[in-house]
Amino acid sequence: MGAVGKSVKRVDAVAKVTGQAQYTADLEPRDILHGKVVHSTIANGIVKRIDISKAMQVPGVVKILTCLDRDLPQYLFPTAGHPWSVETAHQDICDRLILNRRVRFYGDDIAAVIAENEVAAAQAARLIEVEYRQFKPIVTVEAAMKKGATPLHKEVRPDNVIVHSHMTMGGADFRYEQARRTAAKEYGSEELTEISGTYETPRISHCHIELATSFAYVDQNGKITVTTSTQIPHIVRKCVAMSLGLPEGKVRIIKPYIGGGFGNKQDVLYEPLNALMSLSVGGRAVRLEISREETIVSTRTRHAMTGHLRALVKKDGTLLARSAEIYANNGAYASHGHAVCANAGAVFKDLYADRMGVEEDCYTVYTSSPTAGAMRAYGIPQSVWFAECLTDDIARAIGMDPCEFRLKNCMKEGFRDPGNGITFHSYGLKKCIEAGRKAIDWDRKKKEYDRPQTGPVRRGIGMAIFCYKTGVYPISLEAASARMVLNQDGSMQLFMGATEIGQGADTVFTQMAAETTGISFDKIYIGTVQDTDTAPLDFGAYASRQTYVSGMAVKACAEQFKQKILDYAAYMLEHASTDMARTVYAEEIASARRTAVRSLKLGKTEKITPAMLDIRESRIVLKKNGRQLFDLAVLGDTSFYSLDREQHITAEVTHHCKQNTFSSGATFAEVEVDLALSRVKVTRIINVHDSGRLINPQLAEAQVHGGVAMSLGYGLSEELLVDEKTGRTLNGNLLDFKIPTAMDVPEIEVKFIELEDPTGPYGNKSLGEPPAITPAPAIRNAILNATGVAMTKAPMTPQRLFEAFQSAGLV
Amino acid sequence: MGAVGKSVKRVDAVAKVTGQAQYTADLEPRDILHGKVVHSTIANGIVKRIDISKAMQVPGVVKILTCLDRDLPQYLFPTAGHPWSVETAHQDICDRLILNRRVRFYGDDIAAVIAENEVAAAQAARLIEVEYRQFKPIVTVEAAMKKGATPLHKEVRPDNVIVHSHMTMGGADFRYEQARRTAAKEYGSEELTEISGTYETPRISHCHIELATSFAYVDQNGKITVTTSTQIPHIVRKCVAMSLGLPEGKVRIIKPYIGGGFGNKQDVLYEPLNALMSLSVGGRAVRLEISREETIVSTRTRHAMTGHLRALVKKDGTLLARSAEIYANNGAYASHGHAVCANAGAVFKDLYADRMGVEEDCYTVYTSSPTAGAMRAYGIPQSVWFAECLTDDIARAIGMDPCEFRLKNCMKEGFRDPGNGITFHSYGLKKCIEAGRKAIDWDRKKKEYDRPQTGPVRRGIGMAIFCYKTGVYPISLEAASARMVLNQDGSMQLFMGATEIGQGADTVFTQMAAETTGISFDKIYIGTVQDTDTAPLDFGAYASRQTYVSGMAVKACAEQFKQKILDYAAYMLEHASTDMARTVYAEEIASARRTAVRSLKLGKTEKITPAMLDIRESRIVLKKNGRQLFDLAVLGDTSFYSLDREQHITAEVTHHCKQNTFSSGATFAEVEVDLALSRVKVTRIINVHDSGRLINPQLAEAQVHGGVAMSLGYGLSEELLVDEKTGRTLNGNLLDFKIPTAMDVPEIEVKFIELEDPTGPYGNKSLGEPPAITPAPAIRNAILNATGVAMTKAPMTPQRLFEAFQSAGLV
Repeated sequence: MGAVGKSVKRVDAVAKVTGQAQYTADLEPRDILHGKVVHSTIANGIVKRIDISKAMQVPGVVKILTCLDRDLPQYLFPTAGHPWSVETAHQDICDRLILNRRVRFYGDDIAAVIAENEVAAAQAARLIEVEYRQFKPIVTVEAAMKKGATPLHKEVRPDNVIVHSHMTMGGADFRYEQARRTAAKEYGSEELTEISGTYETPRISHCHIELATSFAYVDQNGKITVTTSTQIPHIVRKCVAMSLGLPEGKVRIIKPYIGGGFGNKQDVLYEPLNALMSLSVGGRAVRLEISREETIVSTRTRHAMTGHLRALVKKDGTLLARSAEIYANNGAYASHGHAVCANAGAVFKDLYADRMGVEEDCYTVYTSSPTAGAMRAYGIPQSVWFAECLTDDIARAIGMDPCEFRLKNCMKEGFRDPGNGITFHSYGLKKCIEAGRKAIDWDRKKKEYDRPQTGPVRRGIGMAIFCYKTGVYPISLEAASARMVLNQDGSMQLFMGATEIGQGADTVFTQMAAETTGISFDKIYIGTVQDTDTAPLDFGAYASRQTYVSGMAVKACAEQFKQKILDYAAYMLEHASTDMARTVYAEEIASARRTAVRSLKLGKTEKITPAMLDIRESRIVLKKNGRQLFDLAVLGDTSFYSLDREQHITAEVTHHCKQNTFSSGATFAEVEVDLALSRVKVTRIINVHDSGRLINPQLAEAQVHGGVAMSLGYGLSEELLVDEKTGRTLNGNLLDFKIPTAMDVPEIEVKFIELEDPTGPYGNKSLGEPPAITPAPAIRNAILNATGVAMTKAPMTPQRLFEAFQSAGLV
Repeated sequence: MGAVGKSVKRVDAVAKVTGQAQYTADLEPRDILHGKVVHSTIANGIVKRIDISKAMQVPGVVKILTCLDRDLPQYLFPTAGHPWSVETAHQDICDRLILNRRVRFYGDDIAAVIAENEVAAAQAARLIEVEYRQFKPIVTVEAAMKKGATPLHKEVRPDNVIVHSHMTMGGADFRYEQARRTAAKEYGSEELTEISGTYETPRISHCHIELATSFAYVDQNGKITVTTSTQIPHIVRKCVAMSLGLPEGKVRIIKPYIGGGFGNKQDVLYEPLNALMSLSVGGRAVRLEISREETIVSTRTRHAMTGHLRALVKKDGTLLARSAEIYANNGAYASHGHAVCANAGAVFKDLYADRMGVEEDCYTVYTSSPTAGAMRAYGIPQSVWFAECLTDDIARAIGMDPCEFRLKNCMKEGFRDPGNGITFHSYGLKKCIEAGRKAIDWDRKKKEYDRPQTGPVRRGIGMAIFCYKTGVYPISLEAASARMVLNQDGSMQLFMGATEIGQGADTVFTQMAAETTGISFDKIYIGTVQDTDTAPLDFGAYASRQTYVSGMAVKACAEQFKQKILDYAAYMLEHASTDMARTVYAEEIASARRTAVRSLKLGKTEKITPAMLDIRESRIVLKKNGRQLFDLAVLGDTSFYSLDREQHITAEVTHHCKQNTFSSGATFAEVEVDLALSRVKVTRIINVHDSGRLINPQLAEAQVHGGVAMSLGYGLSEELLVDEKTGRTLNGNLLDFKIPTAMDVPEIEVKFIELEDPTGPYGNKSLGEPPAITPAPAIRNAILNATGVAMTKAPMTPQRLFEAFQSAGLV
């Protein structure tokens, strides 16, 4: 019951439905102070003077911190939710202080108010007067890279380029231009087609339900303690320590239930400031709730990226080579930036088996605009938009069915990325394509929609494919830990450093623990709160890593834990007539022993060894035939209270993961395009995923639902607009920033190709992020199929579609 | 710094002084419901009817539970703070329900109100109307043992005797009467003196500062969770589960800082009721604060005991034999009763090396009066009152110096209790007597005060000795666990199941961890909250066991933890030019390696092994010569983030303790007795303790101060009075129940004889309870010395002294 592969009820279902689940705000202590951040109202410049005199007169104001304070900690720190590294090459960029005098975007953090109540804090924040020295905002990548542009981080990156990665496939010295010449010689120019284009993706906001909220205080051990809605408590601990110049042991982070993160909370957001605020008032508790508007502007966004692409194909549909020049607008601070664009580049090249090779240049650039960081699928929605728009444009150019083109050219079974060595261990990509093709009735519909259409509404079908690694090895460190504790009644406590952030992690860890230990699912209690003081070490929820990496830790820990239980069980059976005979379980154990001896036909001198035993459904059984011996409750009670051999059975294990694998999949979409209104209606959307063995099919399906809805918004409506002149965000609220509502989301169909991945702890691999990758380009390709118009820029809003349809003479 | 033997500052000093230390009431969640217990107003009878109709009309009342509820859990459960046992012979007596229809004392729990506020709860409680069938109260042991007395627990003990233990020393068949006849034959009657007398001790209240307070709710995992001021969270978990018929895994107990317990909180008090109250309102949080008056009457008391004693001595001061018949008034419920009186008997016989033997009969008896349970020193203050009054009466009868008599007859070096095998491993008793004798200038003063005194104020000097075991093995189970976790900065988290209850346990555990691991004291953070879901298993604070038993767990865990650190350190040194060379610590490790190779004169092929290394002051050093290699912070950071070998270094260990030993000591007191006012002024009091090696001398001294003050009240002023007719407690409040105030306590002198106990983890043995044993009888003996009046009954209030002085013709 409830082991791996079953759609058991979420372990937190009741707590969440009844409201018993406690989120950060539910845990605030009484008599807490209220904090409010003051943001810059220019995008690029320096704070010259801050006048807090009026603000200090607001009754209830306790303290105001500003970027000009002499005692402001001057430790540059990173915020990316990566494990820190003891190797410089793997360390994140330290480019900010807790409050910044050097203002780098409209919304930068320059001061903070602490007051007895929320109203006073807000009033005081408004009364703070700031004088700036202003520079010209450099909001776009072009502006920032232009010669003579003001460097945003003079010491760190004087040219505003955070990182430029040159990547190739087909040999380190592969060059696209060279390949073109070679191909022309080899095949003749008439056999070749070259496609080029520029494709763009928008800056968007994560829009997690729970805001970035936290509260901080100094605890009984003198530790600055931040309870925060984060995906990465152990990483936050390190970064808060760095920001304050404190040893890590003096910092404690507590992560309760959280209401979504989608990568925004895979970043250290306001925890350092919140910690500093509490320290500045002698360790009193201070709460800091970042409003929706502040969250959109001043936390993190998904990178807007532009890709200049080229592809060389043979007329028979053989993909020979591609090149990409990708520019990512990273905004004001480095955050994850250096890694996201590189990740985008990696998948762009991996997704197809270009006969000759791929050449890429990825640029991540500081601009004076909101900071981009991690967001679900970490660069891949962008690169797959590039790759999959390009793919359909190629197929169209050579008159080939895009599905056939993909089947012919997509990444092959056993693919191994030559750069990082990540291998496609269990290959389901083609199966996904086949399954989706069949489910949506591709061949018939494609033929139908390919026929010339007339009238105001056009119909089309489209698809897109993706691949996605699982966790971050070998690019970064992968490790996870788990702890298990037996209770008297044979039930167990399970503690993870990995975080439940709404995705169902606690449920699947519980299933894994049940699977490996043999303890019933409903007798496993998982601790959902991660307190860095007590929780096993894990780096958190990101990179779709937890079922894979943290799952390995569960498995390793469960094996050790089970072994200890079986050792004790064997002791009980071997001492049935001595130690056990004095206990209330004497008869039960004696009878179990007789059963074992009889069933295993043991000789008089043969011992019952742990290897002969197993646990099933919380019972000790004979491994050989499943014959039941006694309940784990009997063992639990005995191990707790035996006068002969008392043992609190526990296990704690760290697993350093040096493995990775690819997931893959495809989206198939069918659309109706109303030309006159320039509106797209998605009539069918099917996601097919190769994520290895599913731990909990229903939760897996729910993941896909969420991802598809996100990508729908990404493709059709979401875009965070920043004014180029002022650097001010124009639609930083949920009224003007348009995410799909329940009414906008069509019925989502989900299929899985379940292949056992040999490296996954339970045959599983990444699933968390992948669903959010392909729907947008699949819809774009369906629009192309319906209208013949090849959109290049997401989101495909009615305005953009109208302009494109107009250019094409459709309206 | 801060390792064993040093008087380091308490780890909780700052938190307690600043108010940051959070006690149960500080942790109550918002919107909590308030509970109020309804107590019986008769001492013996049956509840026939309860009318809650008026009470239910009080606005704000949510729910009323009564003992007549049909769905009241009907599971009899024990409350004693002993580890449960899987052996029936070691199980505590299950004799009560959460609410009791069969009322057994005036103050029994018969109903409980749950309301939105405290006032409504109190109002409703007063409006509940109860109709009883009344039986005659049987308040005294005599009444309860009388033939035909109503049985209080018909099914469990129809004769009201909970237990009768017959114990002997000098052979299982030793009989005092027989010995007397033998002695008369051997030595002749004229050589012998026989002393007999009846001595009495009072029922008293613990008077811990923090009341018995708790709150309960159903947590996110569906567990009924009780946060409570208890000494024994893991035991409370078991008993709450038993009381509700739930598996232990469904029960969670959290113990924050607590404001004293002294044994009252080594009992399951209102946690089962509080849990039931929350469950009855769907798991909402309900708080239950038991008032001071309720705490005194309806929680637990120290047993009033009466001892009928006889002793046979030779005129030369050789103690030949003693007998004791001890009766303990256990009140309404068994609680610890069966164990306390037996413990008293054990020490009575152990304390002296009677040449022929000792015979004892100990009776623990149910009466319809407040329940007696554990209180600091668990029966020994009573038995040492008996033994030490008797000893002085013997010495006086034969005209021998009481100090000389004790030196001649007290328990010998290497003493081993023939009943339970507990051995006196490091013998400091005589050294304590000698040291106290010298400190108080016994020989001179005794001579002085022995001279006939006149006038209204008389002076005297007295002493008393004790022995005390350490923990409860082999009478019961002894086990403890500890968990250690390394932080990035080389600091560590220490988790104990053992409880800090004000005594300084957390500080001494931290010292022990520092001592064994080599990590600096100030870099060890102990988790002071025990949550049964996460805390290592330990049975709690009682029996002066924690520094000994839990200390063994700290040591075992620390050894394992240290080994893991040294293994990692050796790996770092061995990989100085490979793995480490890529890290920011490359130079530091390479240099450390050079130092090691040079200093140890290692050959080219010789490896640096963990055995060559040690940790001192949080640095990795060479074991051989202490040469410093690198800081633990370097190792912590590397082990957290190494790309080559990531390891979260942790250890968790259970130690099943099968050892015990005796502590011992003596009190010397000097008094001035004002005959007319019948008031005793203690002018000097010196406690000398043999508690093995002291972990923290200053904390040890503080323990003694508290204990002496307690015993002072025990000897002079404290007595909980119960009306024999009604069974009602007459002075159940701190105005009428007199504990010493700061002004009543003289300056207390403390001395220690520090002998390394070979069984103690750090040479230490029990200290927590012993200080509370001997001051009362020492004062009694000083009064005897001053006035010639041999008091037999504690407390020696002015009234009792006046009566005695009057009988003696002194006033």
